[in-house]
Amino acid sequence: MPEFNAPLRDMRFVLHEVFDAQALWARLPALAETVDAATADAILEEAAKVTGQLIAPLNRSGDEQGAQWHDGQVSTPEGFQQAYATYIEGGWVGLSGNPEFGGMGMPKMLAVQFEEMLYAANSSFALYSALSSGACLALDAHASDTLKRLYLPPMYEGRWAGSMCLTEAHAGTDLGIVRSRAEPQADGSYRISGSKIFITGGDQDLTENIIHLVLAKLPDAPPGPKGLSLFVVPKVLVNPDGSLGAANAVSCGSIEHKMGIKASATCVINFDGASAWLVGEANKGLAAMFTMMNYERLSVGIQGIGCAAASYQNAVAYARDRLQGRAANGASAPDKVADPIIVHPDVRRMLLSIKAMTEGGRAFASYVGQQLDLAKFSPDAAEQDRAQALVALLTPVAKAFFTDTGLESCIHGQQVFGGHGYIREWGQEQLVRDVRIAQIYEGTNGIQALDLLGRKVLADGGVTLRLFTGEIHQFAQQPDAPYRAQLIEAAHRLEDLSDWLEDQAANDRNEIGAASVEYLHLFGYVAYAWLWARMAQVAKHKLQDDPEFYGAKLATAKFYMQRLLPRVLGLEQAIRAGSQPLFELSAEQF
Amino acid sequence: MPEFNAPLRDMRFVLHEVFDAQALWARLPALAETVDAATADAILEEAAKVTGQLIAPLNRSGDEQGAQWHDGQVSTPEGFQQAYATYIEGGWVGLSGNPEFGGMGMPKMLAVQFEEMLYAANSSFALYSALSSGACLALDAHASDTLKRLYLPPMYEGRWAGSMCLTEAHAGTDLGIVRSRAEPQADGSYRISGSKIFITGGDQDLTENIIHLVLAKLPDAPPGPKGLSLFVVPKVLVNPDGSLGAANAVSCGSIEHKMGIKASATCVINFDGASAWLVGEANKGLAAMFTMMNYERLSVGIQGIGCAAASYQNAVAYARDRLQGRAANGASAPDKVADPIIVHPDVRRMLLSIKAMTEGGRAFASYVGQQLDLAKFSPDAAEQDRAQALVALLTPVAKAFFTDTGLESCIHGQQVFGGHGYIREWGQEQLVRDVRIAQIYEGTNGIQALDLLGRKVLADGGVTLRLFTGEIHQFAQQPDAPYRAQLIEAAHRLEDLSDWLEDQAANDRNEIGAASVEYLHLFGYVAYAWLWARMAQVAKHKLQDDPEFYGAKLATAKFYMQRLLPRVLGLEQAIRAGSQPLFELSAEQF
Repeated sequence: MPEFNAPLRDMRFVLHEVFDAQALWARLPALAETVDAATADAILEEAAKVTGQLIAPLNRSGDEQGAQWHDGQVSTPEGFQQAYATYIEGGWVGLSGNPEFGGMGMPKMLAVQFEEMLYAANSSFALYSALSSGACLALDAHASDTLKRLYLPPMYEGRWAGSMCLTEAHAGTDLGIVRSRAEPQADGSYRISGSKIFITGGDQDLTENIIHLVLAKLPDAPPGPKGLSLFVVPKVLVNPDGSLGAANAVSCGSIEHKMGIKASATCVINFDGASAWLVGEANKGLAAMFTMMNYERLSVGIQGIGCAAASYQNAVAYARDRLQGRAANGASAPDKVADPIIVHPDVRRMLLSIKAMTEGGRAFASYVGQQLDLAKFSPDAAEQDRAQALVALLTPVAKAFFTDTGLESCIHGQQVFGGHGYIREWGQEQLVRDVRIAQIYEGTNGIQALDLLGRKVLADGGVTLRLFTGEIHQFAQQPDAPYRAQLIEAAHRLEDLSDWLEDQAANDRNEIGAASVEYLHLFGYVAYAWLWARMAQVAKHKLQDDPEFYGAKLATAKFYMQRLLPRVLGLEQAIRAGSQPLFELSAEQF
Repeated sequence: MPEFNAPLRDMRFVLHEVFDAQALWARLPALAETVDAATADAILEEAAKVTGQLIAPLNRSGDEQGAQWHDGQVSTPEGFQQAYATYIEGGWVGLSGNPEFGGMGMPKMLAVQFEEMLYAANSSFALYSALSSGACLALDAHASDTLKRLYLPPMYEGRWAGSMCLTEAHAGTDLGIVRSRAEPQADGSYRISGSKIFITGGDQDLTENIIHLVLAKLPDAPPGPKGLSLFVVPKVLVNPDGSLGAANAVSCGSIEHKMGIKASATCVINFDGASAWLVGEANKGLAAMFTMMNYERLSVGIQGIGCAAASYQNAVAYARDRLQGRAANGASAPDKVADPIIVHPDVRRMLLSIKAMTEGGRAFASYVGQQLDLAKFSPDAAEQDRAQALVALLTPVAKAFFTDTGLESCIHGQQVFGGHGYIREWGQEQLVRDVRIAQIYEGTNGIQALDLLGRKVLADGGVTLRLFTGEIHQFAQQPDAPYRAQLIEAAHRLEDLSDWLEDQAANDRNEIGAASVEYLHLFGYVAYAWLWARMAQVAKHKLQDDPEFYGAKLATAKFYMQRLLPRVLGLEQAIRAGSQPLFELSAEQF
């Protein structure tokens, strides 16, 4: 059975050497007293133990058993209850939560490393707490103090979990047509009726309570997405002192049978006049829910990196061990019946592709984490705004690019195993099945791409985009910056294409959707080029300290620039073909 | 539950309108008396019924139940026995088999259409007969008359099945290190001992007998692949009159638990001094087995097309039906709560990508089928040789490109469904799981790429490649050829790159493996460009006859040329980076 060992050395490299997290933390008052490099390293080491020893061993058995539903109750696979109980003792659910209500107040830059480990170890298990952390974030940002005091402490503790109830059978991407209704009650509460589907962790047997965040419409709500309000709906009613009361009118109607993440219960949740409390303002629920959604988008993006990292570890171990064929230029293990397959260039190509995309993604996630920390903790309002704009721009890229390339990486990692990659016991096929959902949920990657190009890049005429490409240009002006020419070319390519798309979209709004997915990918490749150049810059200066480690960074950067970045050429040409080739067929002609 | 309806109109388009099969058949004596356009159409219609009504309905239940193994016996899922019995009554296993021994002698160009339907309907079911057909081909080509008379008739009938026993636990790609042994007996037979793994249909409950084709080594065999001999090893011994005798010493040790094709039994087969008969010459077993392997390579390539075609049908139906969001330029269904998602450009992009790759692949498979028919039936030896060379060149492209792009297509088809694509009942996720194996078995796609570039393109200094690109140039010289400039550029790109790789490989054999997968993809995109231009040429002339149908071909050709063909840009640049970026890391540095 495959093991998982968190790539701690690589994580520390990104955190400390590439982004100098310690220096940032030291200048942000709220973090200066909470965390330093040593604390961060200690947390990561503990996280590595928890994920590697407690949670990863349940990954395959969890997939085999799956979550089960009987008589309205979900049971998680064997071992999940015990592991969850141990897990929450570490306070991991509230790792970056608000200390005022029991959170640990750690920076997001650190939390993203932990999330990667968690998804790498066991994506299904990870989801039970990922939804809780996101729900806490939304409550902390939008709920009244009363609600926060009541709900946040047990949720940060992990004793209660959170869920996100958006989708209905007829309303997925299109939340404006949601039908769930909220009736105001005399006491200021509401009663919600409706049925939600695809609710991750909508029911389970891990926590005493589940706090559903539910989008529903008030009686007088305007039509469309502007008529949505956000409610907190506990599975078990909560007394004013925080103790548990009677069951609420919330039930789990069934769970889905899925391709993967089988140990995660994906529920139909029925609300039959369930008691509910408004979060934030009436009819502004979608914006409030987006606090959680953006959290989850980055999170499931990181699922893409985590699954790829796990697949990579397994594939490297197999490629070093499996003997098959001979190296093209002479045997590398002449005393054995064959050479290890890691001598073959195509096996190396697959491994390096995973390595380059996974480490590039890790750096990107850390950069987004850094901006999230600045947006939250910076004492400088202008810096906060700038960081917030970058987060808004980069979140859809993170979600979609990490997961599209995460699938590709898991496919590579499976392919390295040959026939054994297709067999369940080796674990590689599960990673493919598990990572696949990350391209779909929390807004399909197509929706992320529309969000990026339509709402983030074009909506402000490229101002935020220039914030980002400005960072690339600034880096490329450093005399010791590696790959300067490529970076400048890449940034200009992205800028020029964005300008061109702005002109196109002015005439035809379909140009946005026609270009968006390829545009997002091109954006991702350009961003990774910058991050790889940054990593190479650090590695170049430290090469003598540890030639093995830093040499690998330099070699992987080169591989990325020479063998993966060229994909932008085809992407750009496809985008410039415009929307017209997409609209020549009537619906019937397909 | 999804249905499958064979794309008969599209198949007839390729067969009759693009390739004018009737004219070819009329000039090949062996086919002139066997088949004409009307017969072919009748066969395709019958095939559509069998696959759509008999076999497709067992696809999902077969996946749910899977093949089972108890006490050394495999049982196939419910309904398979009955369906198989009905299926073989149609003579489908021997569709293109030798009429001298009971085959129907139909052209391969027709058979590839049938195979596509079969895989589209139910890949697991398809495999039970695909292996039989391939085994028959090898026996027909290499076995003695005695063996042929004994085995071929019941195999063509489908009463007995075939299997292909190559892989051992330590020997997959590297067959030279196979350990199975064959001991000669006084009566001219052999006794085989050894254990084979990954044997598709190695055991089942559908047929009276299973005829294993087994690679093993004779006592005096030279080491490596040149020491392999091919044997026929029946599960049940066959008396000289063709009746069944005692059980042979062949047993099924277990079956694999797999990502997909779960209804297909993937067996460990143990030979414990099993009676065996030599096929062809001693120590020339690999060449003989390649007759079967090349058959299966094209066949599993077609699995890629079939699964994509099935996914496409489901996705189009869903996209026309599912209401979500509004068209960017104004509502298309203002009376409904939302527009069907087929109005959205990105949904169209996904559907058109599948359509372009599936129909391109179908045309390519038909072209290879045409060349196979010429190689087999042409009365002109030069034409036979030319066709055989093209088949050898194009088989690895068909196998790997159909399946790599087949996975991409099935992923797109799943993505169109959003969250429902991840749920088992909709069938799209099964297609992803089922098609994934086709990139792995019958030689991984990495191996196909090495075969293409190393053995097919470079080994004869590009002579065979020029046969193929010559066809493109010849087509592009026609004054009414669409996309002439693009085609000439594409063919030159492929030729120049091949020449460059020949120079590179002369200095470093690793350059072949470093380039091979991207090279195969580039080859595939260039080939599809030619085939789409051919299809567009036909459609252009017939547009007035059926504007809906031919208009769709023209639009899809344009989409292909403008939005998919540009991928060659990135592929070429990655290839030209050479092998060096792959070899900077030691095995330990990964």
